[in-house]
Amino acid sequence: MGKKKGKVYLVGAGPGDPELITLRGLRCLKEADVVFYDRLVHPDMLRQARPEARLVYVGKEKGRSHSQEWIQRLAIAEAGRGLTVVRLKGGDPFVFGRGGEEAEALVSAGIDFEVIPGITSAVAVPALAGIPVLHRNYSSALAIVSGHHCGQENIQKWASWLATSGTLVILMGVENLSRIVSGLKSTGVRSGTPVALISQGSTRREKTVVGTLADIEKIACRMTAPAVIVIGQVVKLREKLAAGFEAAPAEEFDSEFEQPLRGAARL
Amino acid sequence: MGKKKGKVYLVGAGPGDPELITLRGLRCLKEADVVFYDRLVHPDMLRQARPEARLVYVGKEKGRSHSQEWIQRLAIAEAGRGLTVVRLKGGDPFVFGRGGEEAEALVSAGIDFEVIPGITSAVAVPALAGIPVLHRNYSSALAIVSGHHCGQENIQKWASWLATSGTLVILMGVENLSRIVSGLKSTGVRSGTPVALISQGSTRREKTVVGTLADIEKIACRMTAPAVIVIGQVVKLREKLAAGFEAAPAEEFDSEFEQPLRGAARL
Repeated sequence: MGKKKGKVYLVGAGPGDPELITLRGLRCLKEADVVFYDRLVHPDMLRQARPEARLVYVGKEKGRSHSQEWIQRLAIAEAGRGLTVVRLKGGDPFVFGRGGEEAEALVSAGIDFEVIPGITSAVAVPALAGIPVLHRNYSSALAIVSGHHCGQENIQKWASWLATSGTLVILMGVENLSRIVSGLKSTGVRSGTPVALISQGSTRREKTVVGTLADIEKIACRMTAPAVIVIGQVVKLREKLAAGFEAAPAEEFDSEFEQPLRGAARL
Repeated sequence: MGKKKGKVYLVGAGPGDPELITLRGLRCLKEADVVFYDRLVHPDMLRQARPEARLVYVGKEKGRSHSQEWIQRLAIAEAGRGLTVVRLKGGDPFVFGRGGEEAEALVSAGIDFEVIPGITSAVAVPALAGIPVLHRNYSSALAIVSGHHCGQENIQKWASWLATSGTLVILMGVENLSRIVSGLKSTGVRSGTPVALISQGSTRREKTVVGTLADIEKIACRMTAPAVIVIGQVVKLREKLAAGFEAAPAEEFDSEFEQPLRGAARL
C-alpha cells in the first residue's frame, strides 16, 4: 500500500508583520497538515492555514520553553505518519532560530525537509525604523550577534568590529543591555558611539529610542523584548530618514500575540 | 485641484527565486504605476505588475551601470508627478543595495517613501544550499561584507572575525576570490578553514562548491557572479544536511534574466 510521504518545511515567518512572510512560506503554510509555531508568530499568519490543520504552539510559556528535543520529536513523528509539517519560526530559521539543529535531527531521522528563508529582524527591524544597516558613506560591513553571548571574549570581538566602522546588530540583547554597554565601554569603544534600540519592530507597538553608549541604558530603561540593538554610525541616518519616512502600515497584534492561540478554533 | 500624491516604495525582491518576495512587496508591485528594476530581478516577478505599469530596467548593461543619481532623479520625477513608484532591488534594499542613498535623495526631494525589506542572499543562498549561517555548535556570530572592499585593512578585520569562530559571508566577492583567499592566508587564517562558494543561488542554475582556503580557488575557478562566499565551520554542515535536503523547486530563469525585458509587452 502506497503511503503519502511526509515532509517538514522549516519556514521563516519574518519579523512580526504578517505581510512580511514570503510567497513560498505562505504557500507551505496553506498546505500544512500540522503547524508547529513559535512565540512572535502573528495570529493572522496562522489563520492562513487550512481549517483542518492542527496548530501547535511550541514557544516559550511563562519563562519555560519546550525542549528542542521535544519539538524535534514531534515534528519527526508527524512527518513519519505521512503528514506535511510546517515549523514556523520568527525571523529566519537559520539566524538564531535553531533551524540547523532541527535540520540535523530531520536528516538523522530520514525525513525529507525544505528550508524557506524568512526576513531576518536583524536587517528589517532597523530598516523599518529608518536605519539602513549598511550605507556606502557609513559602514560596509554588518555583524549580527546574539546578546545571550556577551562574555568578555565576545565583547572584545564586537569592540574590534566597531573600531573598524562595522555596524553591530545585537539580537536578544535587551536583558543584557547594561552588561553589553559597560563591557563595550571598558573595552575602549567611544562612549559617543551611536546606539538605537527598537522594541516590537515591524508591529504597531514598535518603539525606537536612539542615544549613544553613554546614555542608551538610561534612555532604554523601559524597553522590553523582543528588541533589536543597532550600534554604529548608521544609526545617525535615522534622524535624516525619519523625516520623509512613512512608517509601513503594520498590523496591530491581537492580544493573543504572546500567547498560544488558546481555544481558537483549531487547537 | 487635488493631485494624487506620489510615493516611492523601495522593495527587496529577494535572492532570485520569484517566490521569495514578501506579500507586501508583491502588493506594492501590483499597485505600481512605474517599476524601476535591477539586474537579478526575475521576469516572473515583473509580470505581476499591472498591464499598464511602465517597467524600466536600471541595472548594469554590458558592464556599464546607470548612475545612481540618474536612477534617483527618475524615481523622484515620477513620484513628483503623483505616480506610485516601485524601486525593485535584488535581495534587501539596505544590504549593499544602495537603498540608504536612495532614501536620502527622496527625503531631500520631499517625496514620501516606504521600505519593504527583502530576503537577503547573504543568509538565504547558503540556507538553500544546505548551510545554516549560524548554528549553536559551530558559530553564533555572522558577518556580512562586500568583496569589493578587500583591501588589507578589511582582510585583517575578516581574519580576526574568523579567528573567533564567526561565520563570514562575502557578497560580490567572486571576481576578487584570489585576492581574498591569499589575503586571508597571509593574515594567518588556517588554510584548512572551510569555504563554500554558491553561484546563482535560489535558482535552478545554482551551483555550489565546497573546499578550504587551501583549494577553493582551484575548485571554484569556473564559478561566476552572482555568487555568495561562506567561510567558517558552518560550511561543514552542508555535507550532513545535503543528505536529507530536498532542494526547493526553484524557478528556471528566462533567457532575458540578465537582460532588460526588451520588447516585452510593457516597455
